[in-house]
Amino acid sequence: METPPVSSAPDRSLPSAAESRRLVAVAAGREPADVVLRGARVLDPFTRTWRDADVHLAGRWIAAVVPTGDGARPTAREVLELDGGVLSPGLIDGHMHLESSLVAPARYAEAVLPRGVTGVVCDPHEVANVAGVAGVRWLLDRAAGLPFDVFATVPSCVPSTELETAGARLGPAEIDALLGHPDAVGLAELMSFPQVVAGDEVNLAKALAAEGRRGTVEGHAPGLVGAALQAYLAAGVHSDHETSGYEEGLEKLRAGAFLWIREGSVARDARALAPLLAASSGERLGFCTDDQLPHDLLREGGVDHAVRTAIAAGADPVAALSAATWNAARHYRLPRRGAVAPGYLADLAWWRGEPGDVEAGLVLKEGRVVAREGRLTGPVAPHDRDPVGDDVLRDSVRLPDGLAARLGAALRWRDGESLDGEVPVVEVRPASLLTGAGRTVPRVEDGCLAADPADGLALLLCVERHGLGGTVAAAPVRGFGLRRGALASSVGHDHHNLMAVGADEASLLAALRRVEALGGGLVAVEGDTVRAELALPLGGLLTDASLADVRDALDRLDAAAAQMGCDLPAPLMALSFLGLAVIPELKLTDHGLVDVTAGVRVPVPWGDAPG
Amino acid sequence: METPPVSSAPDRSLPSAAESRRLVAVAAGREPADVVLRGARVLDPFTRTWRDADVHLAGRWIAAVVPTGDGARPTAREVLELDGGVLSPGLIDGHMHLESSLVAPARYAEAVLPRGVTGVVCDPHEVANVAGVAGVRWLLDRAAGLPFDVFATVPSCVPSTELETAGARLGPAEIDALLGHPDAVGLAELMSFPQVVAGDEVNLAKALAAEGRRGTVEGHAPGLVGAALQAYLAAGVHSDHETSGYEEGLEKLRAGAFLWIREGSVARDARALAPLLAASSGERLGFCTDDQLPHDLLREGGVDHAVRTAIAAGADPVAALSAATWNAARHYRLPRRGAVAPGYLADLAWWRGEPGDVEAGLVLKEGRVVAREGRLTGPVAPHDRDPVGDDVLRDSVRLPDGLAARLGAALRWRDGESLDGEVPVVEVRPASLLTGAGRTVPRVEDGCLAADPADGLALLLCVERHGLGGTVAAAPVRGFGLRRGALASSVGHDHHNLMAVGADEASLLAALRRVEALGGGLVAVEGDTVRAELALPLGGLLTDASLADVRDALDRLDAAAAQMGCDLPAPLMALSFLGLAVIPELKLTDHGLVDVTAGVRVPVPWGDAPG
Repeated sequence: METPPVSSAPDRSLPSAAESRRLVAVAAGREPADVVLRGARVLDPFTRTWRDADVHLAGRWIAAVVPTGDGARPTAREVLELDGGVLSPGLIDGHMHLESSLVAPARYAEAVLPRGVTGVVCDPHEVANVAGVAGVRWLLDRAAGLPFDVFATVPSCVPSTELETAGARLGPAEIDALLGHPDAVGLAELMSFPQVVAGDEVNLAKALAAEGRRGTVEGHAPGLVGAALQAYLAAGVHSDHETSGYEEGLEKLRAGAFLWIREGSVARDARALAPLLAASSGERLGFCTDDQLPHDLLREGGVDHAVRTAIAAGADPVAALSAATWNAARHYRLPRRGAVAPGYLADLAWWRGEPGDVEAGLVLKEGRVVAREGRLTGPVAPHDRDPVGDDVLRDSVRLPDGLAARLGAALRWRDGESLDGEVPVVEVRPASLLTGAGRTVPRVEDGCLAADPADGLALLLCVERHGLGGTVAAAPVRGFGLRRGALASSVGHDHHNLMAVGADEASLLAALRRVEALGGGLVAVEGDTVRAELALPLGGLLTDASLADVRDALDRLDAAAAQMGCDLPAPLMALSFLGLAVIPELKLTDHGLVDVTAGVRVPVPWGDAPG
Repeated sequence: METPPVSSAPDRSLPSAAESRRLVAVAAGREPADVVLRGARVLDPFTRTWRDADVHLAGRWIAAVVPTGDGARPTAREVLELDGGVLSPGLIDGHMHLESSLVAPARYAEAVLPRGVTGVVCDPHEVANVAGVAGVRWLLDRAAGLPFDVFATVPSCVPSTELETAGARLGPAEIDALLGHPDAVGLAELMSFPQVVAGDEVNLAKALAAEGRRGTVEGHAPGLVGAALQAYLAAGVHSDHETSGYEEGLEKLRAGAFLWIREGSVARDARALAPLLAASSGERLGFCTDDQLPHDLLREGGVDHAVRTAIAAGADPVAALSAATWNAARHYRLPRRGAVAPGYLADLAWWRGEPGDVEAGLVLKEGRVVAREGRLTGPVAPHDRDPVGDDVLRDSVRLPDGLAARLGAALRWRDGESLDGEVPVVEVRPASLLTGAGRTVPRVEDGCLAADPADGLALLLCVERHGLGGTVAAAPVRGFGLRRGALASSVGHDHHNLMAVGADEASLLAALRRVEALGGGLVAVEGDTVRAELALPLGGLLTDASLADVRDALDRLDAAAAQMGCDLPAPLMALSFLGLAVIPELKLTDHGLVDVTAGVRVPVPWGDAPG
């Protein structure tokens, strides 16, 4: 019954013995502080107010928070005079996918640190789908030593469905191993809420495994209310971040869920949910972005934007900032984070001006000034311990031999099938993850399914790329408007097989090969010519390039697609979701066309009918 | 860096796979509940209000909390109609010493379960001083399987000082081992606050050890404010239960401490601190008893009395009950406890009448009705797993060979010492743990220090009883008023050596021997005749007798002492604190007389001058 002693490796969340001695000596006033921050009102999440106070730092730590101008202490080595404004802990994004930014953790940190965000709890679902346990470890290792906290919840649903081939499978053993990682804080969103509510054993076991390690079990319960909500929470789920309405949120709070108020590229709930802060004890709410795409990340920021949005919608700034700091840290029990109080890490954000005006004028991570006036004070340092090599994420795009022949086979009309009947077609809608399940009479050329630009039909492909069979599946798709060329992407939720859409076979083949040559990425190709591209050599998901470079590349990709006739906004983003077989209605995975609501493959008259 | 997988032994705080399936099925409305509680207003700590709701149970668990009369669910097997009133989780005592009750855990549970208390977080400081790691394990094992939660914090200060011989020493290795116990939730009160504030390495290391295992570090900081408070909390201390004033409490809350509002036999703070619930976010306060002695336990109850006192002093009942349930569970992260919500353990207390009228009419522990109308529904069941044998706590009183000779030597006036000068005398005060350091000219008879009843002087002894040398120390004491006979006790804080006070050597020897014969306990002896006694055969601290039997025995002891001339109230209780070398001014340990403030032994002209 006894748990074994923990590792003797240093725990970066706690002071060393020497740090602890120094910290206590500064707090007691026996030794001078390294830095004193003076002149701001300090957030007090405990009595839910602001207080005038000086904050004394000792190295990475807050040593003391004392009445302004306490003269009894030795003179500090450095005084940072803050010209009014308010001082809070660094903001914590309570649920997010780093991979949505397309950049490595250091580049993500560069984007949000100047905005007062000093940490995230991520769900590394995408790298897990590509590289499993090794991928998750790699991501955490890449983040370790940055002046930015990256904690992880362990992906709970890899693969997302049994109708796709992911690069890895996280079963109970893999999940348990990852739950033991020092930066793991629980189980990531149990997206399989219908199975949980239905009492599926494997799903219940995953939740219990996390709880057995005293981690949280994060939920994902869009619109879930009534008996199904009770059942979902009875399984031991602790939170939800999919709430979009006030009444829904109140019911979930009352039922015991901690709610993450989400404001990100894909869902924007902060305005509707902000009143919940006042309608409850306030301690059961935090903020998150879930997914923030590169353009939005650069323009709006990270979870700071969610806080700002809630305050603009009328939330009390003390309650909103407390939720984004103290509540988030307490929900996950992040050690020594989330408060401006003695013994806490000196992760601090100073907001110039009124509390509602949430623009960070100064940001400290573990006692070091990392940003001033919205700009980094220097490069974001790389990791300080031996990293797991990038090898586990490199060369992750492995196309099968004889790709052209496989593509031909995937498009070939099968003997005996009618040539002029209607067949299913994926209907893409602008700015929506939902697709329609249409019917159409496709063009068949030389015995193969073909694009029909004049009729708005392109060819959609999903090509297994993890070296697990190399299956090619194809279907007609409507809504891109492509008249020539092809787009391809190694980001293909959630399995991250290659997704491609094109007007002709030659462009499609060239696009797929170019993605492989890049080691992963996004491309726009016309015939043999690459019109635009973004390499994502880390698992086919991420790059070490800066966010600004990524944004520019995405803009070039969109422009190239438009040049090829595409009239869909953000077509590569849309493409990356066309294999996501958990969002209705019709999606294409490497297994073929999937009817998401029914959870079955849809028979078609072409291809080699795999499965 | 990875933590190893936890034990595969069942985790009693979590449902088994089968329980989880059943729980979810009842919550979803697919299967009938075992029990439905209907007709009360239910405490909602999340939105801080009462709600009319039906509570559906599945075995040990709360499956669903739904609007009253939800007709869509299958008929429950049993309906408990509650006639108004309010339903809350069972109360949790956030800091207490079980040993203060003098009874075994099952007997303690019998006393407080009918009052709506379903769990405690204890500091097994006394059994640790007698039997070390084995003693702590024994206590938790004795509590396991009861319909009552006993979690432990790991004693941090054993021995309490270096001027005493305890039965065990808990160093960093022993503390770390105990922190790994599945029922351990952190480090117990760091009473050594002056050393912590001074930056003592060993004390800082103990705190870090607990935090490294993600347990709490409980504080003990009477009157600590200003820089010393900042320093104490900077060491990583999370709480305090020694606060007695409102302003002191507010300062501690602001500095980040969780506050336990204490109401017990020794300190009564609930009236003064109740307003803090409204003056803060309310989430940073809980309730505790610390020490509740047998008479008070029977008359007032346990932590229910603290809650009642706070409500009577004006605290909002929702805030007070939330603090005593949800806040306490959340502070220690007790799994699935502290709320009436799906997935939580069905630890419930129904309070008849108005919320302020906190008298439990019905108490359930893990779904089973354990008390109605203030009475247990049946015997409190013993443990359901193989217990650690009581052997580690039996025969714990081991007196040295040649006790009479040792006593003689301890009292013998040393050659060359003045016979008529003043010597130190311990001055006992009624109802106070503080003693005075007096001076007196003692009676010396046959070359030995002797009692002098006519002058109010008795002999005070401390006899090492752990088999670690059998040292006997003696001093004159004033304040008992004993004219004949002797009292002796194996409860002797904190080292629990035998304490005895008497008017003559023969009675003292007989009293000590009777305590040994009982295997520990309290006795009143006159000459060779035992006038009254209470056996405490479990470590010399606890008995399996009922609390009512203990109270009656204590009454008989007090009466016998009075018969022998004693005019001090509760003399055996007073005696048990005369060796407590952390409370000023003059105390007697087996090392001799101790000047507590100076932290040194006081030289005297008698005895064999040990050390």
